[in-house]
Amino acid sequence: MKVAVLGTGMVGRAIAVKLTELGHEVVIGTRDVGKTLAQKEPDRYGNPPFATWLDERPSLVLDTFAAAAGHGDPLIVNCTSGMASMSALEMAGEANLRGKVLVDIANPLDFSRGMPPTLDPVNTDSLAEQIQRTFPELKVVKTLNTMNARLMVDPSLVRGDHTVFVSGNDAGAKAEVGKLLRAFGWAPHNILDLGDIGTARGTEMLLPIWLRLWGALGTAEFNFHIQRNG
Amino acid sequence: MKVAVLGTGMVGRAIAVKLTELGHEVVIGTRDVGKTLAQKEPDRYGNPPFATWLDERPSLVLDTFAAAAGHGDPLIVNCTSGMASMSALEMAGEANLRGKVLVDIANPLDFSRGMPPTLDPVNTDSLAEQIQRTFPELKVVKTLNTMNARLMVDPSLVRGDHTVFVSGNDAGAKAEVGKLLRAFGWAPHNILDLGDIGTARGTEMLLPIWLRLWGALGTAEFNFHIQRNG
Repeated sequence: MKVAVLGTGMVGRAIAVKLTELGHEVVIGTRDVGKTLAQKEPDRYGNPPFATWLDERPSLVLDTFAAAAGHGDPLIVNCTSGMASMSALEMAGEANLRGKVLVDIANPLDFSRGMPPTLDPVNTDSLAEQIQRTFPELKVVKTLNTMNARLMVDPSLVRGDHTVFVSGNDAGAKAEVGKLLRAFGWAPHNILDLGDIGTARGTEMLLPIWLRLWGALGTAEFNFHIQRNG
Repeated sequence: MKVAVLGTGMVGRAIAVKLTELGHEVVIGTRDVGKTLAQKEPDRYGNPPFATWLDERPSLVLDTFAAAAGHGDPLIVNCTSGMASMSALEMAGEANLRGKVLVDIANPLDFSRGMPPTLDPVNTDSLAEQIQRTFPELKVVKTLNTMNARLMVDPSLVRGDHTVFVSGNDAGAKAEVGKLLRAFGWAPHNILDLGDIGTARGTEMLLPIWLRLWGALGTAEFNFHIQRNG
């Protein structure tokens, strides 16, 4: 299928590569194509510049948020940084979003107050709910936002059972996203549907402990598992 | 040892019973002894009135927050509801808290806006940090606040490995609390020290997803497990 991946960071790259491997036609969206390609330094996590990375992956295309979102039908994946997601989707344009499924992986982490980052919105709202309210004809499904990018597309990196959460209002859209998660390697019994998009508040609020666990464990290769009987 | 359990709800009852079984001398603290004993109705969770419950457990004593905290040496356990914790500790009195270990199990759930409850404080602060700031000579250790009361004192209720988080500034206090958790049945490899008391922000912020999971799974018998390699 035709998929738009919005965002050129670690998450966007991991998702774009995996979708391509699965045979999908991917266009990656960015705010300013020239600026993204002109970047010559590794990012703050040590990832190579996007242009270098893209050169090695000729099947991938970079375009504007709007062009990518226009291409992405039925699926758009929001891999932008959370504080920039609303403006990225505004640039993508309501007409390019209408009726489509949006997989929202972004977390609204605010680094402006220093470390550790805080969340904005939080507690009485979430980014996923903001997106759903702003674009009511978009079918927002929040998922994959509670783990490291590599793990999203290869759950076997962490042994044993662990959980990917799903939140969304549209049952059909959640079923489609469930198929995609299974294609990424997620076992059906580890895909946990929390309910409507309001439940994304809970998964976004996992980020503070995720970041502390990263520090305490000294690795990002871990995941939440909901342990239960039967 | 002599332990104070502040709070007469499900958590206080479960902790008090377990501590008694382990041979500790427990005094349960409440705001108003007469009022607590006069309550004739089950609480909103269907638990029997406290007086009925206490009558069946003659080794347990009920007293004021101050008297209980005076008895509790070296250990006080905060099992009050989170929105009432600061005033309960004020009533316990700084002199009765100084130099002691406080196990803080409370979550600052605010039901005043309706369901689902929100957290206050949240994101840029936590109840555990508030307590530690207000009583700097108290050794606050946040733990057990991310699960059902029955599971706190009997982790075998949920099969397999699952995690209890620990946050606190005082290494000695955390070591004491670790001993207590092991006595409650927690395997050492499932006790996860997140770091200083600031990390309690992360565990308190697990409550929104915990409440949604309770709804989605239809049972409170589940727990978070941090799945990782090696």
